[in-house]
Amino acid sequence: MNIPQLKEAVCAANLDLVRHGLVTLTWGNVGEWTDDGDALVIKPSGVPYEKLTPREMVVVAPDGTILEGENQPSSDTPTYLEVYAFFRQKFPFLRGMVHTHSTSATAWAQARREIPCLGTTHADHFFGSVPVTRPLTEEEVREAYERNTGKVIVERFSALGLDPEAIPGVLAAGHAPFTWGNSASKAVQNAVALEAVAEMALKTFQIAQSFPALESYVLEKHYSRKHGPNAYYGQKENRE
Amino acid sequence: MNIPQLKEAVCAANLDLVRHGLVTLTWGNVGEWTDDGDALVIKPSGVPYEKLTPREMVVVAPDGTILEGENQPSSDTPTYLEVYAFFRQKFPFLRGMVHTHSTSATAWAQARREIPCLGTTHADHFFGSVPVTRPLTEEEVREAYERNTGKVIVERFSALGLDPEAIPGVLAAGHAPFTWGNSASKAVQNAVALEAVAEMALKTFQIAQSFPALESYVLEKHYSRKHGPNAYYGQKENRE
Amino acid sequence: MNIPQLKEAVCAANLDLVRHGLVTLTWGNVGEWTDDGDALVIKPSGVPYEKLTPREMVVVAPDGTILEGENQPSSDTPTYLEVYAFFRQKFPFLRGMVHTHSTSATAWAQARREIPCLGTTHADHFFGSVPVTRPLTEEEVREAYERNTGKVIVERFSALGLDPEAIPGVLAAGHAPFTWGNSASKAVQNAVALEAVAEMALKTFQIAQSFPALESYVLEKHYSRKHGPNAYYGQKENRE
Amino acid sequence: MNIPQLKEAVCAANLDLVRHGLVTLTWGNVGEWTDDGDALVIKPSGVPYEKLTPREMVVVAPDGTILEGENQPSSDTPTYLEVYAFFRQKFPFLRGMVHTHSTSATAWAQARREIPCLGTTHADHFFGSVPVTRPLTEEEVREAYERNTGKVIVERFSALGLDPEAIPGVLAAGHAPFTWGNSASKAVQNAVALEAVAEMALKTFQIAQSFPALESYVLEKHYSRKHGPNAYYGQKENRE
Repeated sequence: MNIPQLKEAVCAANLDLVRHGLVTLTWGNVGEWTDDGDALVIKPSGVPYEKLTPREMVVVAPDGTILEGENQPSSDTPTYLEVYAFFRQKFPFLRGMVHTHSTSATAWAQARREIPCLGTTHADHFFGSVPVTRPLTEEEVREAYERNTGKVIVERFSALGLDPEAIPGVLAAGHAPFTWGNSASKAVQNAVALEAVAEMALKTFQIAQSFPALESYVLEKHYSRKHGPNAYYGQKENRE
Repeated sequence: MNIPQLKEAVCAANLDLVRHGLVTLTWGNVGEWTDDGDALVIKPSGVPYEKLTPREMVVVAPDGTILEGENQPSSDTPTYLEVYAFFRQKFPFLRGMVHTHSTSATAWAQARREIPCLGTTHADHFFGSVPVTRPLTEEEVREAYERNTGKVIVERFSALGLDPEAIPGVLAAGHAPFTWGNSASKAVQNAVALEAVAEMALKTFQIAQSFPALESYVLEKHYSRKHGPNAYYGQKENRE
Repeated sequence: MNIPQLKEAVCAANLDLVRHGLVTLTWGNVGEWTDDGDALVIKPSGVPYEKLTPREMVVVAPDGTILEGENQPSSDTPTYLEVYAFFRQKFPFLRGMVHTHSTSATAWAQARREIPCLGTTHADHFFGSVPVTRPLTEEEVREAYERNTGKVIVERFSALGLDPEAIPGVLAAGHAPFTWGNSASKAVQNAVALEAVAEMALKTFQIAQSFPALESYVLEKHYSRKHGPNAYYGQKENRE
Repeated sequence: MNIPQLKEAVCAANLDLVRHGLVTLTWGNVGEWTDDGDALVIKPSGVPYEKLTPREMVVVAPDGTILEGENQPSSDTPTYLEVYAFFRQKFPFLRGMVHTHSTSATAWAQARREIPCLGTTHADHFFGSVPVTRPLTEEEVREAYERNTGKVIVERFSALGLDPEAIPGVLAAGHAPFTWGNSASKAVQNAVALEAVAEMALKTFQIAQSFPALESYVLEKHYSRKHGPNAYYGQKENRE
């Protein structure tokens, strides 16, 4: 997609966040990169969704320079850029990213607990627990808060040896979720799935304190029937 | 109903799932059989609800062969076929089936606990606890995951001696609910009822850890005033 | 109001239940009496809300005889009639009654716990705990289930010396709430308030296990500023 | 803004409460002061939101005298006036105030617990815990309930040395939340944020009983990037 097309797609994906009930006030944003990764098209900071049109989208270079647009980009832009720079090595199809403060996922981030895989809804979208970052140090916050938020996300995936394509989301400790995908629209779908599995997991523990974890072979089965070379969920032309 | 009528009815029933708030993204589907059981009309796999028209519905034979339609049928089709083949012996009026990942019912499935009958809302639709299957073995998942999901549903009903007409729903362990009925529309109503009683049961245990179970004679009274030969709930012409 | 006006009002009040999110499927109904109490206008049993028009409303005599209408009245009609016959002695302005299976209030009914007054939201509508009935005996269920449901409601108010005007609602044990008021519309407002305070009370106990009860003088203040001779909440012409 | 403009703004802000799902029935109101503080424009008491037009708004003097309008002002008016009289000394830009019975914030008020800062959603709007007042004494309720509700709010902020600009909200014990801001619209945003953080905090404690509090340097960072001299969240022209 070229820049004008990306502006349309990113604006629509931001409005989809609202339609899916993931945002309160202006707490959420979506961005998508050009294929070469030289530009990120992202929501402007703090602009109400009801006033959002493709024209308002901001185009940003990998170093954070504003390439196009009269608005300031989302304050989370440095986080996006940092995560993208590292994750595209493992996940070359990475294009879209999302940040929300959706209620249940944010509660898990605040409790600083990873979301365990308790069922096939989770397995369909995340191939294992959704991890939580370590908190930033005071130094990291002072020096470059948003960029270092990206750094601790990358650090967590490296430490656990996680594949960002298989686990397309994370909880920033004390903060809120980030998700990604091969398009802005796919990243939004992952944000929707993350909020749903966060709520289901919370309710599951309210029903019972202990129960068997999802069998690893069911996790593998569900993940692989939707993703990977032998996927058979959905229509052939739409498979990832 | 003939096939074109079934396509209309099944498409409408799928959209009713959305209207009742039971589906997120594409996580849900409805199907209905012809009277002779020779064909199942079902939602195509992974197609967004906003693009669903009767034309997209898929017609499938009891052995899974696609009889009509350009799309792949729901990936849950083998589960439907397996359940139908066995349940129609006890419940000859069985026509419709539904699968959703509705939040509270899925939480019970993830906690692997049956939903006990705690009140008349439950008794009006399910004549006793809503059972939960055993998990599939690794072998069963590898061999034929979806068909074996149907098998463990049937196995559970057989083991407990349950009548699928009186208990028109089940929780697949670690997965999510399935419901059925004498039409697609009735199966959707049972899916709605199941999600409601799942949420009410969860909240009931949040209020108190112990309380009397619903008296068996109240369960019988409520179930029989809506179902069976002496039913007096609703209008005569609509009674089951 | 005459009968045609009551049919309009009762139909509108039934649709208000839907608008307020209190009903799932057909689980709820509203009725209103004529001033002389000789006729109750009530929703027909099991008719979907989207098909409800004033014409469908049923007119019933105090002994349950259908005076007007081609439909069967709500199966809860005998409960309404029984409660009305006794409560109008203490609350002569009683005109409207409502029955729903709204989620949180039903959870309290299933847990068989009265809803304690924890705050001013409750105090504004219910002058003290919302009581819960005893369960019916097997004999009472067999003999006349719906009428005896009314009897245990009356019995509970008598035993506790409660004024049905000051406590315009009750939880039928293992079943669900009933509310009333000086009109169908007012009874609906009390059903909305009851569901809200039921949800707030549930959440309050999730936050803390113990905390001071609402001070009795605050309960009195809030109740009396909305109700009774010196009420000053709202506009003079609308005060009860 | 002049009085006619304020009536428009206050009416719109009241309807925003409904749009954000913060009000049930008539339980909520918004007011805004003139720049000189000589008049408060506020919602009339007990009027349904669907009938609200700017014409219905009531204009009230600092001593409670009605300056304009045929309706009685909200019964919470004396609380607003009391809080405003004291808080504008510390927060001269104070213009708007809101009172709701939004579900989760009210549950915290009923549990009589302050809402601790567990994450950046909270830190973006409230610079620390949202405090809860002490209960009123019987004497205070009898003498001047609504005005004394304002007094205990002020008393709590004084006792804790809190800045009402940095903590733009409070929980009245056993009652419900109040929020404020430099306009009616901003006060509504703070009411929306308060309900969201109340719900997130409740869920966080459901997930884990203990976890690290939000690091104080993250609280400072988040608060200051949205507020104060070096704010960089949002667009320059809209910053507070």
